[in-house]
Amino acid sequence: MAQKTNVRERLLAAAFETLHRDGFNATGVQDITDAAKVPKGSFYNHFASKDALGVEVVAEYVAKGAERRRALVDGSGAPLTRLKAYFKSLNQLGPASGFSRGCLLGNFSAELSSQSPDIRQALVDAFANWTKDIARVITEAQESGDVGRELPAATLAAFLLNAWEGAVLRSRVDRSAAPLDAFMKVAFNKILT
Amino acid sequence: MAQKTNVRERLLAAAFETLHRDGFNATGVQDITDAAKVPKGSFYNHFASKDALGVEVVAEYVAKGAERRRALVDGSGAPLTRLKAYFKSLNQLGPASGFSRGCLLGNFSAELSSQSPDIRQALVDAFANWTKDIARVITEAQESGDVGRELPAATLAAFLLNAWEGAVLRSRVDRSAAPLDAFMKVAFNKILT
Repeated sequence: MAQKTNVRERLLAAAFETLHRDGFNATGVQDITDAAKVPKGSFYNHFASKDALGVEVVAEYVAKGAERRRALVDGSGAPLTRLKAYFKSLNQLGPASGFSRGCLLGNFSAELSSQSPDIRQALVDAFANWTKDIARVITEAQESGDVGRELPAATLAAFLLNAWEGAVLRSRVDRSAAPLDAFMKVAFNKILT
Repeated sequence: MAQKTNVRERLLAAAFETLHRDGFNATGVQDITDAAKVPKGSFYNHFASKDALGVEVVAEYVAKGAERRRALVDGSGAPLTRLKAYFKSLNQLGPASGFSRGCLLGNFSAELSSQSPDIRQALVDAFANWTKDIARVITEAQESGDVGRELPAATLAAFLLNAWEGAVLRSRVDRSAAPLDAFMKVAFNKILT
């Protein structure tokens, strides 16, 4: 049983790495078992399908993302200061990987929205929760008068998160931080005012 | 020779459809030759590789996109009115396909930026030209006083295009026009002011 758990964990860790780096459809089950250094036949003892593994990879990515939002959601300090620090820290992930990976949720959105109902549903939930956390902070900023109330916090939050995903995508294409810098400039000088 | 051209055109048309609908890596050469109703063996008489075909598909998509921007770039009417009409018309493509396809350039960006140097370069150029057209219209709007000059038109244009790509991606995940609506609201009430 200990061995079995170990194989499962190794498969999950290998999938987390390979699916983010190479994409879902470019990665075969054998690529994952090779990366995990386990026999190919063991895969289906642990996961019903590659899609089922994909759902677990999304869940793990989401858990890391929620952890990363802790200071944003529960931190002290002015709401806009926390939000700026949050996006700044996210933006450091781009250059750290040579802009090669982007956001796994964004990548899966493009590749799997029309292919895997289970993964799509996991993405729907992930983005909804992420948006809710950002909206909460924008609501605080509206209450303190730092952000106008012309548009609801939920609209601004959804817009910003989607705009950030788009900026990350463009930074992958251009291999450049410029789209992330433009995001920060427009978000904090034009939108959140 | 007429026959040969015909096969090439059928392959290109079939690839345009299948690669947009199903994605690049989920579509095999045989899927494309099947859709084109040509023998699998004929593929490499016409294209050096699937990547080379992908570059041609991007070029065709880009040509259609440039055509769609004609009224935006050369039209009469106030610049912001043209820009709003342009994004409105783009946004109608989402519901028309049940939000199943998104933007081919955005999809390829997510899937192929780290996989195919040739397709990546085609995307770099496509987004640069698209951004330039939008920036030109925003410059006009700044000159007429409809948009402030705090940020350069090029920054606003890049931000907007990336934000739109992000909104399209989210509309695919959520199968909803809400992200596109939020884009319009924030773009034309907060950013382009």
